[in-house]
Amino acid sequence: MTGTGAGAATAGPGAGAGAGGAATGAGAGAVPGLEALFRPRAVALLGSGDGRDAVVAWALGRGARVYAVRGEAAAGVLPAGSVAELPEDVDLAVVLGGDPLPVLRQLADAKVPLAVALGPSASTDRLRGGATRVLGPTDAAQFQPLRDDPAGPGLAVVVPSGPAGRHLYALQELGVRVSHWAVTGGEADLTAADLLAYCAEQPGVGAVALHLDALRDAPALLRAADHAALHGVPVVALPAPADPATAPVLQAALRQHGVVPVGSPDQLRDTAVLLARARPPRAEGIAVYDDGSSAAAPFAALARAAGLPAEARPGAPLEALLADPDTGLVVCPVPAAHPPHTDLLARALADAAETTDKPVCVVWGSPDGTEPAYRKTLLGSSRLVVFRTTANCVAALAAYTAHHRRAAAHRSPYEEAPEAPSPSARKARPLLRPGHRLSEHAAKQLLRAYGVRVPREQLVTSAAAAVRAAAQIGYPVVLKASAPQLSRRAELGLVRVGVTSASQVRDTYRDLAEIARYDRVDLDGVLVCQMVERGAELSIRVGHDPLFGPTVTLGTGGALAEVVADTAVRVPPFGEREARSMLDELRLRRLLDGTGGGPPLDADALVEAVLRVRRIAQELGGELAELAVDPLVVRERGQGAVALGAHALCRPATPA
Amino acid sequence: MTGTGAGAATAGPGAGAGAGGAATGAGAGAVPGLEALFRPRAVALLGSGDGRDAVVAWALGRGARVYAVRGEAAAGVLPAGSVAELPEDVDLAVVLGGDPLPVLRQLADAKVPLAVALGPSASTDRLRGGATRVLGPTDAAQFQPLRDDPAGPGLAVVVPSGPAGRHLYALQELGVRVSHWAVTGGEADLTAADLLAYCAEQPGVGAVALHLDALRDAPALLRAADHAALHGVPVVALPAPADPATAPVLQAALRQHGVVPVGSPDQLRDTAVLLARARPPRAEGIAVYDDGSSAAAPFAALARAAGLPAEARPGAPLEALLADPDTGLVVCPVPAAHPPHTDLLARALADAAETTDKPVCVVWGSPDGTEPAYRKTLLGSSRLVVFRTTANCVAALAAYTAHHRRAAAHRSPYEEAPEAPSPSARKARPLLRPGHRLSEHAAKQLLRAYGVRVPREQLVTSAAAAVRAAAQIGYPVVLKASAPQLSRRAELGLVRVGVTSASQVRDTYRDLAEIARYDRVDLDGVLVCQMVERGAELSIRVGHDPLFGPTVTLGTGGALAEVVADTAVRVPPFGEREARSMLDELRLRRLLDGTGGGPPLDADALVEAVLRVRRIAQELGGELAELAVDPLVVRERGQGAVALGAHALCRPATPA
Repeated sequence: MTGTGAGAATAGPGAGAGAGGAATGAGAGAVPGLEALFRPRAVALLGSGDGRDAVVAWALGRGARVYAVRGEAAAGVLPAGSVAELPEDVDLAVVLGGDPLPVLRQLADAKVPLAVALGPSASTDRLRGGATRVLGPTDAAQFQPLRDDPAGPGLAVVVPSGPAGRHLYALQELGVRVSHWAVTGGEADLTAADLLAYCAEQPGVGAVALHLDALRDAPALLRAADHAALHGVPVVALPAPADPATAPVLQAALRQHGVVPVGSPDQLRDTAVLLARARPPRAEGIAVYDDGSSAAAPFAALARAAGLPAEARPGAPLEALLADPDTGLVVCPVPAAHPPHTDLLARALADAAETTDKPVCVVWGSPDGTEPAYRKTLLGSSRLVVFRTTANCVAALAAYTAHHRRAAAHRSPYEEAPEAPSPSARKARPLLRPGHRLSEHAAKQLLRAYGVRVPREQLVTSAAAAVRAAAQIGYPVVLKASAPQLSRRAELGLVRVGVTSASQVRDTYRDLAEIARYDRVDLDGVLVCQMVERGAELSIRVGHDPLFGPTVTLGTGGALAEVVADTAVRVPPFGEREARSMLDELRLRRLLDGTGGGPPLDADALVEAVLRVRRIAQELGGELAELAVDPLVVRERGQGAVALGAHALCRPATPA
Repeated sequence: MTGTGAGAATAGPGAGAGAGGAATGAGAGAVPGLEALFRPRAVALLGSGDGRDAVVAWALGRGARVYAVRGEAAAGVLPAGSVAELPEDVDLAVVLGGDPLPVLRQLADAKVPLAVALGPSASTDRLRGGATRVLGPTDAAQFQPLRDDPAGPGLAVVVPSGPAGRHLYALQELGVRVSHWAVTGGEADLTAADLLAYCAEQPGVGAVALHLDALRDAPALLRAADHAALHGVPVVALPAPADPATAPVLQAALRQHGVVPVGSPDQLRDTAVLLARARPPRAEGIAVYDDGSSAAAPFAALARAAGLPAEARPGAPLEALLADPDTGLVVCPVPAAHPPHTDLLARALADAAETTDKPVCVVWGSPDGTEPAYRKTLLGSSRLVVFRTTANCVAALAAYTAHHRRAAAHRSPYEEAPEAPSPSARKARPLLRPGHRLSEHAAKQLLRAYGVRVPREQLVTSAAAAVRAAAQIGYPVVLKASAPQLSRRAELGLVRVGVTSASQVRDTYRDLAEIARYDRVDLDGVLVCQMVERGAELSIRVGHDPLFGPTVTLGTGGALAEVVADTAVRVPPFGEREARSMLDELRLRRLLDGTGGGPPLDADALVEAVLRVRRIAQELGGELAELAVDPLVVRERGQGAVALGAHALCRPATPA
C-alpha cells in the first residue's frame, strides 16, 4: 500500500521548531482543501483524456472512493450521472483532458474544493478565482504512487512537471521518504507558493524540495517561504536560470526568506535530503572521521575553504567524535570500496547514527556504487545522509550550516517592517516627476524627507544668491552645477570643492555657468553645499527587479566603485538584522570595522541609512525606476553618514 | 591477461601534441629502466616478506620470468642461488620485507637497474643514490594486476599508497583504461616526479592522475610537470592539504607548470578521465544538449557562472550540435532515468560519440545508478565521459578548458628564463646584511641594481645636506625619516610630501629629527626624494615558500591593500607570458585597462617590473627572507611604473 498517512508520520526534526511564531506569522497560510491532493476521501473523474488509469490506481491506493461522472463502473470505480448527482461530498475532482472551464461552475456548486486539470487547457487565465481551486493544467505524473516503506523525516517535493521532478521521485529507490509530491504544471490557479505553504504545515515533513520554473508570483513565493521558515521547515529551491543581471536578486530574495538556493538538480536532491534528515546543529564544528583512507584531510580542507569549521580527526574513534560537545555533525569520506574494511565501516556508521541525534554523513566515492556496503548498509539507514561526491557534500553542509544559523534568528520580515505608508511618503511624493530624472537637489530633498542625512545646500540661479547661500551655509562650500540630465559632471569641471570666500563663490558661479554654456548643458541652477568631511564612500541604490519589484543594493560608492564591484542586495520588506547582514556580505566590511588599519566607521549610521532607503523602496518603489545615494560618506564611529550625491529616475506614469 | 603492452596502446589524444619541444626541453627526462615497473622481462625475488604471491602472479601475468633468489622453485618460479648467479639480465628486483640496503650493492653489481622495496625499511635515507634505483618502501598494492579489456586513451595513476589510489584503480570497473599504476610509498629514492616524467613519455597515456602526499622535492615535481606539458600530456593532481597560508603558492606553482590541481579524490577521478579521453578542443563553445528534461538550462547557467561559454540548445538535434563549428564539446545532463526514453538517449549519445572527435560528456544524475542505460550503454563506451553530478562535471569542464588554453601556449619556464646569474647580482649582493632589515634607501638601491625604477633620492644626515640634495633632485621633494626598523612611519608623521623650498626643507628636516627623538626611533638619516606623480598603487613582493622556495606576488599596494586583498603569486622561473597572466588574475585588472573609468595604465611597465623582481627572487631569493616593493606607482600608459616604497629583510647567514 502507498500512502503518507499522518498516523505513520513521525515529526521531522525541523517541524515545529519555529511553530510558536506561526500563529502570528504574517506569511501566507495554506489554501484550505489541499489535503485532498495527497490523501483524498472521494474523487470524481470527469472527461475521458489520458491518465485515467493512473488516477484511479492512485486514488484507490490511498483508500479513496472513486466516482466516474457520466462514466461506466469499472474495477473499484463507481458511476455518477453528473457532478450534481455525486452521492457524497467529493474533496477532489480530476478533469481529464479538454477544457476544465465548463465544469468548474458545476464543481463549485457541488462545493468540491479542489480540482486537478490534466492535459492542456485553452483557458488557463480563466481557471483562477473560483470557489473550486485548480491545480494545473498538469500531467499524470501528479498521480504517481509514493512508496511507504522508506522511514525517517519526509521530503515534500514541489515541481513544475513530471520530468523536472523525476530525480527527486527516484530518491525513494535510495530509501528516502517522499512524503508529498506535487506537480504544479501551468499554475493556472494554484502555484508552487500555495503548495509550499501547505507542505510546510504538515507533520512529518523534514524539508521541502522546490524546483521553480516560471515564477508567476514571486512575492507570493517569498510569503510562502516565510511561512515555512516560521514553521521551522527548511526549503531548498532550484530556481530557473535567470538573466545573470537579475540572478543575484533572485538568490538574495530566496535566502532572505529562509530558502536555500541551489544550482543543479543533483544538488537540490543532495541538499534537500540533508536538510530533511539532519536536525539543527547543536554545535557548529564538523568532525571529519578518518578511517585511514587519507581522504579526511582533503575533505576538511575543502570544507574549510567553503567557510565551514571542519577538522579531520585522524585516529579518533567515531564514538569520541559524536560525544565531543563541539561537534555538530560528523562526516566520513570513503573514496573507494575496500571489502571487508569498508563493509565494517559502513555498518559502524549506520550503527553510530542510531545512537545519536547528531547528523552523520557519508561520502561514498566509490565509482562503482553497486557494493552492498553502499546499497544495503548505508542506504538502508534512514538516519545517515549519503553523498556520492565531495563537492555536493560540502555544498550541502555549507547550506545546512548557513540555513540553521539564519533560521535560529528568523523573524518574519512582514512583521518587522509594517507596510502602512509613512508621513515621509506624503512629503516626498510631490517631488516625483513621472518619466523624468530628478535633479540632484530634488533627489536629496526626497532623501531628507525620509530622514537620510544630506549636506546643507541651496539651489541658486545667480551669483549674488550663491554668495548669500554660502554665507548661510558657512564656509568652505562646494559648488556644483545642477541639471537633471547631468552625467560626467566632475570630468567637465562642473564641481568645485573648498570655495572659501564670497569673491571665490562669485567667480566660481560664473565659471560654472560659462562651462555649462560652452558644453550646452541646460542648468537649472548651481548647488551651493556644505563641505562634508571625507569618509568611506559607499552607495545605496533602489532598483526594480522584474520578478520581485523594488530592490535595495548596498555597495562601494564614489571612485572606489570603479575598482571594486562589491554589493549586497535585498528585497523589501526587511528589518534591521537583514540590513546588518548586508554589511557582512561586503568585502568592505574590514574597512567598516577598522581592521584594515583605519578607524572603525559608523556602521550603525550606515544600517540606519539602508533602512531609510528601504522604506523609500517600499513606499515609492512603484514610482521610482532608480534611486542612487552615491557617494554616501560614512564617517568615523558616532559621526554618522551623509548622502553627498544622489540621483533618481521616475517611472513613466501608468495609465489609470 | 593483464598488461599495458605498447603494441595494444593507441596514442592518447594529447600524446605527442607538444612533443616537438620535448627534445630541447629543459624539464626532467625520465629515469632509465622504469619500464620494468610496468612490463618486466625478468624479475628477481629477494627475501620472504608478505606479498610474494601477488608479485609472482603480477610478473607472470605480464609474461616475465621470475627467479626466487635463495628460494625454492614453485609454480612458474625458477630458483637462483644468489643475485650474482642469476642466469639472465634481470630488469626488476623485488625485495620482500626487511631492510633492502644489504642487497642493493649486489643488485648494483649485477646491473639490475630497478628494485622495489616492499614493507617498512629502517634505512630509507641510504637507499638513495645507488646504481640500482629504488621504488618504495611501498606496499603490495604496487603489484595489483591491471585489466586490459577497457579501451580508449589510458590513465596513468601515480599515488603514494594503495589506499590513496583505490578509487582510481576502481575506475577500471567503469570501463576506464588504467595504463600505468605506480605506488610511490616512502619515496626513499624514486619520487612521484620520476614516475610522472616516465608516464608522460609513454604512448597511449591520455592523462596522468597524481595523488601528492608529502612533496619531498617540490621543484623536481615542477620540472617533471613541465616535461609532461612539453609532451602534451595533461596532469591532474590532488595535492595534500597544505597550510592555508601556503596553499595559494602550491596551487599557483602547479598551474604555472601545466598541472590541473583538484580538491577531492572524486574530482581527481572525474577530471582526469575527461582530460585523458577528450582531445584538445577545436572551439571553446560548450553546447548543452537538451532532450526535454529541463536540466540543460540550469546546467548551462552553472557552467557560465564558472566562466565557460556554455549554451543550452533546446530542440537542436545532437548531430547539429556536433556539426556546429563553434562547438568544442557537447554535454548532456540526464537528471533521472526514465526508460525507454533515457535508454534511447544513452544509445544515441554513445553512437554520436563514435562519429566525432569532439568530446561528448554525460551527467547521469539518476540517484540509483544501476540502470542498464548507465552501466551498459554509457559506461560501455570508451569515448563518452560520464559524470554523476553537475558540480564535478562543471569543474572538470572548467579545468579542461583552462588546461588546453594554457597548454596551447606552453613554453618551458626553464627555457624562457635562463638561470645564469646577471651582472645585477654582483651589484646588489653587497647591499645585503644577513639577518638584518635593509633601510628603505638600501632596498631601493637593490631594486635599482635590477633595473626597477625608483625616484631620485638621497640619504642625508643634516639639514644643510638635505637642502643641497633637494636642489639637486628638484622641487617639490618628499622627506622621509629613514631607519631599518621603521614601521607606521606615516602614522608617526615621519613622511612629508610636497616640500617646496630650501627653508621648508630645513624646517621639515628638524621636525622629523625631533619626532624621531621623541618616539625613540634611531634614524640612519632622512631621505630626500623626488616627488612622483600619483598613479595606481600596486605591490610586488618576494616571499619564501617552505616547499617551493622564493615566490613573487603581485597585488594591490599602498592604502588600497588595506581594503582589497587582491593578489597573484608565481614561483620563479617564469617568463613574460606568465607575468602577464598575473595581471589577469587581479580584480584590479579593470583599473589597469581603464575600463573602470580612468585612463589605461602602463601594464607593460608593470610586467617589466614583475620580471625584474622575479630575477631578484631567482638570484637573491636564497638570501632574502622578504622583499616588498610597496607601493609601486603605475602611471598612465607609456609613463612607466616607479617603486615609491620598498623594504627588505635578509635571511640569517647559513653556517658554511
